[in-house]
Amino acid sequence: MTAPARHDADDPEVVARIERSFARQAAMATIGAALQRVAPGRVEIALAHRPALTQQHGFVHAGVVATALDSACGYAAYTLMPADAAVLTVEFKINLLAPARGPRLLMVGEVLKRGRTISVVEGRALQAPEDRDDWQPVATMTATVMTVLGRGLDG
Amino acid sequence: MTAPARHDADDPEVVARIERSFARQAAMATIGAALQRVAPGRVEIALAHRPALTQQHGFVHAGVVATALDSACGYAAYTLMPADAAVLTVEFKINLLAPARGPRLLMVGEVLKRGRTISVVEGRALQAPEDRDDWQPVATMTATVMTVLGRGLDG
Amino acid sequence: MTAPARHDADDPEVVARIERSFARQAAMATIGAALQRVAPGRVEIALAHRPALTQQHGFVHAGVVATALDSACGYAAYTLMPADAAVLTVEFKINLLAPARGPRLLMVGEVLKRGRTISVVEGRALQAPEDRDDWQPVATMTATVMTVLGRGLDG
Amino acid sequence: MTAPARHDADDPEVVARIERSFARQAAMATIGAALQRVAPGRVEIALAHRPALTQQHGFVHAGVVATALDSACGYAAYTLMPADAAVLTVEFKINLLAPARGPRLLMVGEVLKRGRTISVVEGRALQAPEDRDDWQPVATMTATVMTVLGRGLDG
Repeated sequence: MTAPARHDADDPEVVARIERSFARQAAMATIGAALQRVAPGRVEIALAHRPALTQQHGFVHAGVVATALDSACGYAAYTLMPADAAVLTVEFKINLLAPARGPRLLMVGEVLKRGRTISVVEGRALQAPEDRDDWQPVATMTATVMTVLGRGLDG
Repeated sequence: MTAPARHDADDPEVVARIERSFARQAAMATIGAALQRVAPGRVEIALAHRPALTQQHGFVHAGVVATALDSACGYAAYTLMPADAAVLTVEFKINLLAPARGPRLLMVGEVLKRGRTISVVEGRALQAPEDRDDWQPVATMTATVMTVLGRGLDG
Repeated sequence: MTAPARHDADDPEVVARIERSFARQAAMATIGAALQRVAPGRVEIALAHRPALTQQHGFVHAGVVATALDSACGYAAYTLMPADAAVLTVEFKINLLAPARGPRLLMVGEVLKRGRTISVVEGRALQAPEDRDDWQPVATMTATVMTVLGRGLDG
Repeated sequence: MTAPARHDADDPEVVARIERSFARQAAMATIGAALQRVAPGRVEIALAHRPALTQQHGFVHAGVVATALDSACGYAAYTLMPADAAVLTVEFKINLLAPARGPRLLMVGEVLKRGRTISVVEGRALQAPEDRDDWQPVATMTATVMTVLGRGLDG
């Protein structure tokens, strides 16, 4: 595969809103994930293999891949929500396709269906060597994300 | 709910094998997860709410809950595998039932079906206050785990 | 396992509402599924192995098991909804634990979490011989179900 | 969307093997599903909206969509398996994206990852009017499928 498609027509207000929210996700800093690209209905998050993130065989833990991919999916849906909405993950499912060796990992969340209340987002985790953009699949996710307006976060 | 059931009849060899593997999962140390109990077909992992693990609303990130719960499910299956096997997560699905406020979180993985190659494990994330064992549901997981014998980890 | 628990304290109005809706699900008649029991937060549907429902090895097709189990889960959530609500399946996940030989199959849906908009329901498919209630697991499902009030069904 | 891509380079032996297996799936005849196209790693199954397949609002029941889509996914994996293998669905997850009005429905299964034992298949359910190929998404599935060689089907 080649590198994921790039989008240019991003609303600066939406991008700023997602950057602010991402910066408040302390878990992203803890695993070293970085917001790489925000486009309408699509968000990319970069993650690097680090010893602190591994499971017993030295690969990035499936849950850590899921953590970054869940954020990519949630923010992809968030790009299409009203400015005063909060985003809530209802559920996600992840299939692991290959060991997450890295060293570079890219999480791509892309909205499949946008609903007033419920959106469905597809996530793809990819990995590539340091020196070339040969992106190979690591995991696939389907996430159900809820738009929460004017009330609590209890579903 | 009351605290999860306790098992006593644990094979020390199995417990030691899982403790060694868990200690090699650097991701567990990074999120502060601790192996709490190992029994045949069942593993419990404790996690505490910490600012470093949060999402934008201050709850533990769904992916971090999934990370600890995935390990609980994988090791629950591992307790029933041959000593020379490796354990591999094929996929998991998680539904978030309540915000993960903690402060105490407990991940319980319990084998629903043990197969020669494929096992199915149910995971429950629970939370309780510091001062009493009033465990309430946070998330439910179903995980498919593979027994890998005498070859690589590529499925 | 013994037979699933029985509930007696059923609201006749809720039971009648679900019986009417079930009778309109032509797919249930097509596969021969019967509404067996309705209780608050829990619904049971019976299904019998028939040649018309099989896959290539003579077992009931996983999708047919999923069809009856999805209805059990949806109606379990519906028992807890306002009288004027409609119920919509957002997603479900099923793990097959054993071939569905029957001859008797029982689908049990039980609400794990009831929300204003989103409910999470756990489904279990069981099977038993004709002559005794030795119920063994066939499949496990987790379903996300939506309460739809006063508008269309487009999510 | 336009109609799904067509493949021409099909191995007649593989096609014949899948046609034979499909013909033994009585559940496919019961719901009126037809094998439409078999290509390496990809299978398409056609289904038409019929009153016998509906849920309470007159749409095709989510479980019936899942039944045809599960077969499309299983057979997509089967195209890449050895001739003496059996195919077994381990689990699948489906998100419903729009009510299944039909009248024409198309289920497309496509292998995401082929493994010696475990394959991961993505399924898409689409619908179109009778008179033009304007295919719109109805559902998305991720299925885990097992290759079974020289032994039973108990996982």
